[in-house]
Amino acid sequence: MIAGTWRMALEGVSKGAHMLATGASAGDAVTEAVRAVEDYPLYKSVGLGGLPNGACQVELDGAFMDGDTLDFGAVAAVKDVKNPVSLARRLSTERFNCFLVGAGAEDFARVELFEMCNMLTERAKRAFEIRSRKVRESNLSPYDGHDTVGVVALDSSGSMACATSTSGLFMKRPGRVGDSPLCGSGLYADSRFGAAVATGLGEEIMKGVLSYETVRSMGEGLDPDSASRRSLKSFIDRRIQAGRRVGAISILCCSRDGRVGVATNVEFSFVIARRDSPAKVYLVSPDGDGVKIQEAPVEWLEAYERRIKLPPEEVF
Amino acid sequence: MIAGTWRMALEGVSKGAHMLATGASAGDAVTEAVRAVEDYPLYKSVGLGGLPNGACQVELDGAFMDGDTLDFGAVAAVKDVKNPVSLARRLSTERFNCFLVGAGAEDFARVELFEMCNMLTERAKRAFEIRSRKVRESNLSPYDGHDTVGVVALDSSGSMACATSTSGLFMKRPGRVGDSPLCGSGLYADSRFGAAVATGLGEEIMKGVLSYETVRSMGEGLDPDSASRRSLKSFIDRRIQAGRRVGAISILCCSRDGRVGVATNVEFSFVIARRDSPAKVYLVSPDGDGVKIQEAPVEWLEAYERRIKLPPEEVF
Repeated sequence: MIAGTWRMALEGVSKGAHMLATGASAGDAVTEAVRAVEDYPLYKSVGLGGLPNGACQVELDGAFMDGDTLDFGAVAAVKDVKNPVSLARRLSTERFNCFLVGAGAEDFARVELFEMCNMLTERAKRAFEIRSRKVRESNLSPYDGHDTVGVVALDSSGSMACATSTSGLFMKRPGRVGDSPLCGSGLYADSRFGAAVATGLGEEIMKGVLSYETVRSMGEGLDPDSASRRSLKSFIDRRIQAGRRVGAISILCCSRDGRVGVATNVEFSFVIARRDSPAKVYLVSPDGDGVKIQEAPVEWLEAYERRIKLPPEEVF
Repeated sequence: MIAGTWRMALEGVSKGAHMLATGASAGDAVTEAVRAVEDYPLYKSVGLGGLPNGACQVELDGAFMDGDTLDFGAVAAVKDVKNPVSLARRLSTERFNCFLVGAGAEDFARVELFEMCNMLTERAKRAFEIRSRKVRESNLSPYDGHDTVGVVALDSSGSMACATSTSGLFMKRPGRVGDSPLCGSGLYADSRFGAAVATGLGEEIMKGVLSYETVRSMGEGLDPDSASRRSLKSFIDRRIQAGRRVGAISILCCSRDGRVGVATNVEFSFVIARRDSPAKVYLVSPDGDGVKIQEAPVEWLEAYERRIKLPPEEVF
């Protein structure tokens, strides 16, 4: 089984599911699933077409974790790298220097013959211009949109893996790193227990180390829903008690026996595919301490397709 | 009470202890303690005089966490910033962009009027030259020396904080980030439970999210020694079972009632100061599943003082 955060994971999760069905490893499946999202220019928070930082540069974060070994690799604040997730996976095989940022990561990518290209699209540039003007004119917060694609998978041999990729907060400060490339925060996998990925305001997610806490709780015997919800709720309660606002957070996880769990404090969507069931999109909304989940209606899916193709003026 | 990793924390911990005795907060005490280590040029793995990366650049990581609120800030792979820990602490007050790396972090430091200077000393440059030659001539692993200063404190109002600072792995790849600036890996503090910092091979520490796991275990009721040792041992067992070598790891932690715990798989030293007892250096060595601890003998302390002042040719 394979699952990913947000509707944008649909095509990648489908691809990963086909790979798993023909015997691919969880590591290969999550990597290819995330690459598919990185490559599609209309997904505005990941890879090519990702929204730029405050200096109109697309700076990307990505990570990979192997649940069998705990091998981990990550990159952050990299420019011009076409597939950050593949670079992260390559780094996960290194005993030293498994997490590289900025120009150092870019230099490593070049030496390792990774494809480099300008990740800023015409559309993302236009979004930046529109948003910059609105921020100046109407005192709007510049920080909006921080959807990470995170994918977890369990393969036929019982191995688990997870991966993330994001362009981070729209209009972020150059060099800003969120939770997505941080082991334990944006992702964690241990094939003995499960795997988890997070999306939302990374500055908050990292303070709660929420992916690790979710996986660890599954190791304690909690089912995936309970594990992710307890992690999220106890963190939110803790921050509110300290007088802080938490922002949007969603957690998607999978137990070692293939059950999927989700926790969120905002409207959220995710995708699951299983051996006996093709990739489907689900909509989730918070509901008391739990969530309400429904399969995405056709109208919702069609509206999504239309929305991502609207002229930038109508979106940003 | 205040405690720090390695003998190099001695002067800083002493300073922090004096501050705590006159009513300073845990946050102020750990920040000043770490600054003192950053400022001393003969400590070769932190701040000024820190050993350079493989391109002979001193790239620094630092972080700060407030255990009352879980506010967290960090910088990684920054050059020319005299006190990374203070920059990290400044960032911990930001709701967005609390973790900055590379040139973006340096630009933020300039705008915020932080002191910038060349962090490469004559001595560290010489060390780089000597080590580079040896690596070329004798096939030596370039990666050696990765001692992070990590400080935890508990103040008179029951608040806890922790901070870290390091130049990371000697000869690391440019842009490499270890565990030290990562929330949950290099450090974690929650005043309800305790605080922990880690030092050693960051690539490993982050895979186990060891500081978070240690603090969380104290929250479960474990004493600090048991919490840090269980965290370390279960991680090491897990990695060995996966066929991996773990490298050096040490964890220093403090419970909410001021008890200190330590776990290590290598020779390690640390410093504690309490209201009724001035800063003292302790030597720790692994001993079965536990450790042997002794106060550092005068001869050891004198040998240390001599060693850090030896000509680079005799050290590297």
